[in-house]
Amino acid sequence: MMFEGVGIITFAVSGLIEAARKKLDFVGMAMVAALTAFGGGTLRDILLDRRPFFWVQNVNWIYGILGLCVFAMLFLRGRHLEFTERAILWPDAIGLGIFTAGGTQVALAEHMPAIVAVILGVLTAVFGGVLRDIVVNQIPRAFSDHQPYSVVGFTGAWLVLLGDSLNWPSLLTLGVSAGFIVALRMIAVYRGWRLPAWKI
Amino acid sequence: MMFEGVGIITFAVSGLIEAARKKLDFVGMAMVAALTAFGGGTLRDILLDRRPFFWVQNVNWIYGILGLCVFAMLFLRGRHLEFTERAILWPDAIGLGIFTAGGTQVALAEHMPAIVAVILGVLTAVFGGVLRDIVVNQIPRAFSDHQPYSVVGFTGAWLVLLGDSLNWPSLLTLGVSAGFIVALRMIAVYRGWRLPAWKI
Amino acid sequence: MMFEGVGIITFAVSGLIEAARKKLDFVGMAMVAALTAFGGGTLRDILLDRRPFFWVQNVNWIYGILGLCVFAMLFLRGRHLEFTERAILWPDAIGLGIFTAGGTQVALAEHMPAIVAVILGVLTAVFGGVLRDIVVNQIPRAFSDHQPYSVVGFTGAWLVLLGDSLNWPSLLTLGVSAGFIVALRMIAVYRGWRLPAWKI
Repeated sequence: MMFEGVGIITFAVSGLIEAARKKLDFVGMAMVAALTAFGGGTLRDILLDRRPFFWVQNVNWIYGILGLCVFAMLFLRGRHLEFTERAILWPDAIGLGIFTAGGTQVALAEHMPAIVAVILGVLTAVFGGVLRDIVVNQIPRAFSDHQPYSVVGFTGAWLVLLGDSLNWPSLLTLGVSAGFIVALRMIAVYRGWRLPAWKI
Repeated sequence: MMFEGVGIITFAVSGLIEAARKKLDFVGMAMVAALTAFGGGTLRDILLDRRPFFWVQNVNWIYGILGLCVFAMLFLRGRHLEFTERAILWPDAIGLGIFTAGGTQVALAEHMPAIVAVILGVLTAVFGGVLRDIVVNQIPRAFSDHQPYSVVGFTGAWLVLLGDSLNWPSLLTLGVSAGFIVALRMIAVYRGWRLPAWKI
Repeated sequence: MMFEGVGIITFAVSGLIEAARKKLDFVGMAMVAALTAFGGGTLRDILLDRRPFFWVQNVNWIYGILGLCVFAMLFLRGRHLEFTERAILWPDAIGLGIFTAGGTQVALAEHMPAIVAVILGVLTAVFGGVLRDIVVNQIPRAFSDHQPYSVVGFTGAWLVLLGDSLNWPSLLTLGVSAGFIVALRMIAVYRGWRLPAWKI
């Protein structure tokens, strides 16, 4: 729950930064922040035909994002952007781990086949950022920056399947899978790993 | 009902204008017009898991939009575009009022919490235009033009909550809230109000 | 079933080509290919509130697309792109025919009104490509290239309505309608038919 919050706030902040870069207004900032934070989980729930969404069940997330936007409006300045982007590398990895592992568990609980559960887990973590980039009119970074991000989530999500088949307690599975994803992601960042390039 | 029609047709026309600007073909024009007119309400209904959509329940709206596109194809010329855009300022404000207030009522009837109902009301009115702008490959105007549009809807939608909590008749609530939004929007237009700018 | 496969693979390949053009990475390629192949049918099923999606019911399609992406990564080179694009003209027409006719039948089976069933049929075939183009940040070709594509599907979809009202066997209706669409589409391609242009 606390870790989920880390993910939501980080994703919202990454939306804010993008909105600031594109000089969106307050409405655009709030919408892009919310889309980035809630978009992935909402898409997963629409695909699974699952209600209520987590931001309906716990509306404090909505107020939190609105508060964050007001705060950013008042205090965020241009010189903060780059610093913030570096500062959220760790929280962003935590978000990737928690959302992917948690999303995979949710999909498994709805009796999805293994590969579908894994993909829905990855979508939960990645699609908020994809929607953010589509809205601000650029090709999604997740599809084009050759960084191991979705791929790390994809790899770790299979640990959820493993834990599930071994009947591990749900929280243990979540912790192990998310921890693996966070670690692998940070190793990829610090080692500068790259996805293999097209030979076109 | 009649007012709802004003909103649908206005939103369709704003889609047509955008399609004409981008030199889309007839298919693109019809799709963008329909997306602008139906997109917000359809998104709301998907989020609420509510069927049938209003354009399924009353297919005359579909035929109406197709007719509008044929008409535009035959008679709309470049010199009409700017004139039309000014001419739809009032109808567009009416659309904003009716769709926001009506959308909020629909969400309340589905037992959504207050803030969710308000946001779904605003989405009903605003998201058609957002989808229109995404499809024609530009950053949504609603997010970047610093005009009080969504914000006006957001403010007025709380009147629906007020009316609901005071047990006003549904039509009275709709009228008061929508009227307030239309008035506030037109004041904002004529006074040239702007959203506060980023200090970046 | 076999013909459906022709459509899915062709649409995936058209996604691959676009991803290669935009220099997306492997993740982007797989996502765009899957979005192009599955997007139209998935949107149709979301609008109809219909589950499970066909790619959940038969996960081999997912593995197929992943395999296709690995294959493309290894063997697709720049000089193949134009050749591939010409080579998929026929398969693409088959995909248009099968998806439109099949999608219309699915919508009819869910008791949609005639015009809605026709539009959902066309969306099934066309919206994968629309999503592909939105994601790679260009105006959808289906809306702007003045080629008779959606219009051909729209025309042929009414044959499904005809067959349905005459109580033809379902497979006969599918064959006649899809065949009509494939033929009309290929005639349009070889004769170079164009949609009427705006006079703006």
